[in-house]
Amino acid sequence: MFAEQAPHGGSSSDAPPFQLGLLGHGTVGGAFAQLLSERADEIERFNGRRPVICGVLTRSRGDFEQILAGADLLVEVIGGIEPARDYLLRALRAGKHVVSANKQLLSQHGEELFEAAREHDVRLRFEAAVAGAVPVVRVLEESLAATPIDRIHGIVNGTTNFILSEMTRGLSYAEALAEAQRIGYAEADPSDDVSGRDAAAKMAILARLAFGSPVHLDDVRYEGIERLHADDLEYARELGLGLKLIGTAERRDGGLSVHVHPTFLYGGHPLASISGPFNAVTVESETITELTLSGPGAGGRQTASAVLGDVVSVMTGGARPPAPPLALALVSDVSSAFYLHLDVEDVPGVLASVTRVLGEHDVSIKSVVQRGLAERARLVMVTHPVLESSLRAAVAEVDAFDFIRAPTRTIRVIEEEFT
Amino acid sequence: MFAEQAPHGGSSSDAPPFQLGLLGHGTVGGAFAQLLSERADEIERFNGRRPVICGVLTRSRGDFEQILAGADLLVEVIGGIEPARDYLLRALRAGKHVVSANKQLLSQHGEELFEAAREHDVRLRFEAAVAGAVPVVRVLEESLAATPIDRIHGIVNGTTNFILSEMTRGLSYAEALAEAQRIGYAEADPSDDVSGRDAAAKMAILARLAFGSPVHLDDVRYEGIERLHADDLEYARELGLGLKLIGTAERRDGGLSVHVHPTFLYGGHPLASISGPFNAVTVESETITELTLSGPGAGGRQTASAVLGDVVSVMTGGARPPAPPLALALVSDVSSAFYLHLDVEDVPGVLASVTRVLGEHDVSIKSVVQRGLAERARLVMVTHPVLESSLRAAVAEVDAFDFIRAPTRTIRVIEEEFT
Repeated sequence: MFAEQAPHGGSSSDAPPFQLGLLGHGTVGGAFAQLLSERADEIERFNGRRPVICGVLTRSRGDFEQILAGADLLVEVIGGIEPARDYLLRALRAGKHVVSANKQLLSQHGEELFEAAREHDVRLRFEAAVAGAVPVVRVLEESLAATPIDRIHGIVNGTTNFILSEMTRGLSYAEALAEAQRIGYAEADPSDDVSGRDAAAKMAILARLAFGSPVHLDDVRYEGIERLHADDLEYARELGLGLKLIGTAERRDGGLSVHVHPTFLYGGHPLASISGPFNAVTVESETITELTLSGPGAGGRQTASAVLGDVVSVMTGGARPPAPPLALALVSDVSSAFYLHLDVEDVPGVLASVTRVLGEHDVSIKSVVQRGLAERARLVMVTHPVLESSLRAAVAEVDAFDFIRAPTRTIRVIEEEFT
Repeated sequence: MFAEQAPHGGSSSDAPPFQLGLLGHGTVGGAFAQLLSERADEIERFNGRRPVICGVLTRSRGDFEQILAGADLLVEVIGGIEPARDYLLRALRAGKHVVSANKQLLSQHGEELFEAAREHDVRLRFEAAVAGAVPVVRVLEESLAATPIDRIHGIVNGTTNFILSEMTRGLSYAEALAEAQRIGYAEADPSDDVSGRDAAAKMAILARLAFGSPVHLDDVRYEGIERLHADDLEYARELGLGLKLIGTAERRDGGLSVHVHPTFLYGGHPLASISGPFNAVTVESETITELTLSGPGAGGRQTASAVLGDVVSVMTGGARPPAPPLALALVSDVSSAFYLHLDVEDVPGVLASVTRVLGEHDVSIKSVVQRGLAERARLVMVTHPVLESSLRAAVAEVDAFDFIRAPTRTIRVIEEEFT
């Protein structure tokens, strides 16, 4: 693919440099330029060509056409849909390789970009778009053909994982968010993170790679952490559960289900111990049972390291863009265990009435915690797996009882599968 | 590199099959043939060529020369040094790609094989040689150029991790070993596993990839789990520590230190929660802070999945063999925190005498547990980091005291670094 003069050292100065056009020079772009200058010698020794930045495009300087003409590869760290989409399509169509960290773009226009890359036989890599320095994109790309994947669970947003870790230590949601903003883990406007939308974009990308089916951000159901109560975390601890914002992509009923929800995990689950701003992804497959990757999910230098890894991968002729998709039906009504939090009057017969209604909807109870508190009581339960539609119907009926004081809260639970 | 007719489907039958010669047809070889038959359609769709087995060599059947002549790539799952080494060198020199699961061979003759692969510009891949289906080889190969690595810690032997997990539940070493043998996690002759030699071979391979310096199995100091006492695990629990067989490869004093030892970890360490027959590797780097990969370390189908992943990687033009080594000095005397277990007579002045000697050798104490037991007592300590030579000198002097009833036991401790 490339002229491979003098790989592995020798008179490597004979080989022309590998020209990189850098689109964007913010936190990640700046860290990338710095890291590249530190690692260029080593990369040249290994690959026989030296990667150099031939041009930088920012809002205020640089000319895209000129950078494109001189580049072997474009590094895109602008973010957002336009003009990134336009730039990348033009680059791919001009036969240039592309490395992008842009999760918004890939989760909404991925197929268009993949198709352009396939058509013009160039590489399009995007490790940094999901889980920062954790090489989950690479592992899914390379493992897909060898291993049929059943399910992925991921903690793919470090901001919310940090906030939930702080809430587990006893802080309220508002306090934990303020702390995240103070440290710089959350932005002034945190809505993309705390709403689950950022995680949903990343799960759309992972689902595409793992299952070969096109998944658009709009196909992913998501629910954020804004409405969680500190006492849900407290009850959960009594039940041996921890709370995470979990993205799930899995085969279900011959189709594919992709969603992001606050979710309780048992202590033995490999994602249960991931705390603070870290990311982690678990890949389940009959062939390999279970594989877990974890590490820092963000940070300029971590993300830059993933971007540079992609550049090196292109230089060594790495993976081709995903094959054309084979669409699987999207399944939205899937079964799960649930945690239920009922705010009830402390009158006789409450538990009997609730369990009768649940039973009529095939919701079976695994464990219960009941606690009186003056005239109000809390009834906290974990169910066995049940179709979400059945659970919702049961809860609607329960909430119609006079003794219910506030809408019942429901949170998904991942059952302990590996013990 | 390859004729890429009709990649991603289309009239893929035009492209010639990708011919695999299979050396060895035991547990892994059989599982590989089975997995290949299940996945060939998907691989062909993705890569445009169909991988097929053109010949199988076992002790009783097959002709090596004939298989070599017809193959694009040889899959070696024989194990051991000869004839595997001879076969692979002949294959590489004949311009054939090689995928091997052979940790013995790679840890003892890796440089010879890498050189042959570089010289003949063919691929040599060996994901399955370390940590089964956990893609640590791939991640190190591809991350090396982008990220300077400081340290690797690994649980790379599932048999010993299973035994230690059982010992933590209260079994003796002999009972835990018998249980491992009964389930099939340990062989009838478990010495390669329990001595630490198997883990040492894997750490030699990982160290070569992470640091670019040649590391032979003989360069790796290792110590097994055979002489561990159940009461060490019990005392350790009181100190908040768990016990694992940890392989370490790290930059030290401008050189490289590679060793395998039973090691105590604090509960917050990412390897502390890896239990049963699982493997896990932590990669530390200033750039990415810390990355952890974990999953099943062995099993025919898991290993076969790693082998097939390598085959697919070669078909897509994946990573070249490691660059020629840049030798780093091997450093053997490195500092570490230590757990000390002293079996002492319960007489006055013991603690004062012991701490005086330790202090004279710059060994400083972090925590102590003392427990009387009839006229004998146990003194259990954890030190702050100290050069191993200083620790050994101090222990030799302590053991000369009359009140010492048995040689002092020492076990390394990895300090809590990420909190």
